[in-house]
Amino acid sequence: MHTTTNKKPLLARIRRIAGQVAAIEKALEDEADCAVVLHQVAAVRGAVLGLMDELIEGHLREHVARPGIDDATRTAAADELMDAIRRYGK
Amino acid sequence: MHTTTNKKPLLARIRRIAGQVAAIEKALEDEADCAVVLHQVAAVRGAVLGLMDELIEGHLREHVARPGIDDATRTAAADELMDAIRRYGK
Amino acid sequence: MHTTTNKKPLLARIRRIAGQVAAIEKALEDEADCAVVLHQVAAVRGAVLGLMDELIEGHLREHVARPGIDDATRTAAADELMDAIRRYGK
Amino acid sequence: MHTTTNKKPLLARIRRIAGQVAAIEKALEDEADCAVVLHQVAAVRGAVLGLMDELIEGHLREHVARPGIDDATRTAAADELMDAIRRYGK
Repeated sequence: MHTTTNKKPLLARIRRIAGQVAAIEKALEDEADCAVVLHQVAAVRGAVLGLMDELIEGHLREHVARPGIDDATRTAAADELMDAIRRYGK
Repeated sequence: MHTTTNKKPLLARIRRIAGQVAAIEKALEDEADCAVVLHQVAAVRGAVLGLMDELIEGHLREHVARPGIDDATRTAAADELMDAIRRYGK
Repeated sequence: MHTTTNKKPLLARIRRIAGQVAAIEKALEDEADCAVVLHQVAAVRGAVLGLMDELIEGHLREHVARPGIDDATRTAAADELMDAIRRYGK
Repeated sequence: MHTTTNKKPLLARIRRIAGQVAAIEKALEDEADCAVVLHQVAAVRGAVLGLMDELIEGHLREHVARPGIDDATRTAAADELMDAIRRYGK
């Protein structure tokens, strides 16, 4: 599974996002300037989009496009992918 | 090809969007209230997202997930799909 | 009103989008390769986002931030803006 | 400042997001099914968008639309807001 084969880089990515979120929490606690908080949240959104891209691509290549998958598994994985993409585009 | 098999509904969809865009042009020419124009443009964005969803799904099911496609074609179609998804999510 | 003062560039922008939409209609009629259509639609989405940015900024500067507006008008314009931004971010 | 007056609900919101991010980290560590991770990340994106909406609205009402602000402060706050909105819509 792509989230297992890419476990290390995915974990590094989610931990960076966790660090960004913790920084926002601290900025709010310290009553930092709101424009700073706005930018920090926009940056987290960008990081989450990047992680979403990576997961969608992993799912597409591993569970839909990879040679040797049986038809039923391919179709089920395509359904899951469309679910995520619809939520993602909105 | 999915854009051929679904030609009629896709053409109906893009013509609706063309109609929405023409309505915005008219609203600007008639100097309609800017809040009206803002909403019309947000509605076109929603319609374009809906069309994008349909095309991504068609591409995924027809060129990546469909049984009987050779591996090279499947991989090339997955590349094309990721290209569109990355532009789409941003 | 900003959509009147900027009428010419806004009309040029919406007419470019109308042209892009017409090109998609033609590509579908001519049964062009679906990857081409996907990219054309992603490009229209980008153009619509650009137009949305311009209208939101015009509304913000003209009806909310401009000196000399009475408080009630400012608040009503801020309500309209948030309406559009919520639809826009989703 | 709106991030101070709304400190408690904003902190509650960011802590919920921190909890969601921690759950993704755990799912990756436990090698959970990738479709589960995909959905968790899509949910975090939605939560971040919601927080972004709230911050944009707070900034708009507190620093741009509120009665009694001097013109220069209003204009500077409008600049900051457009910066965040442009990043947000992309």
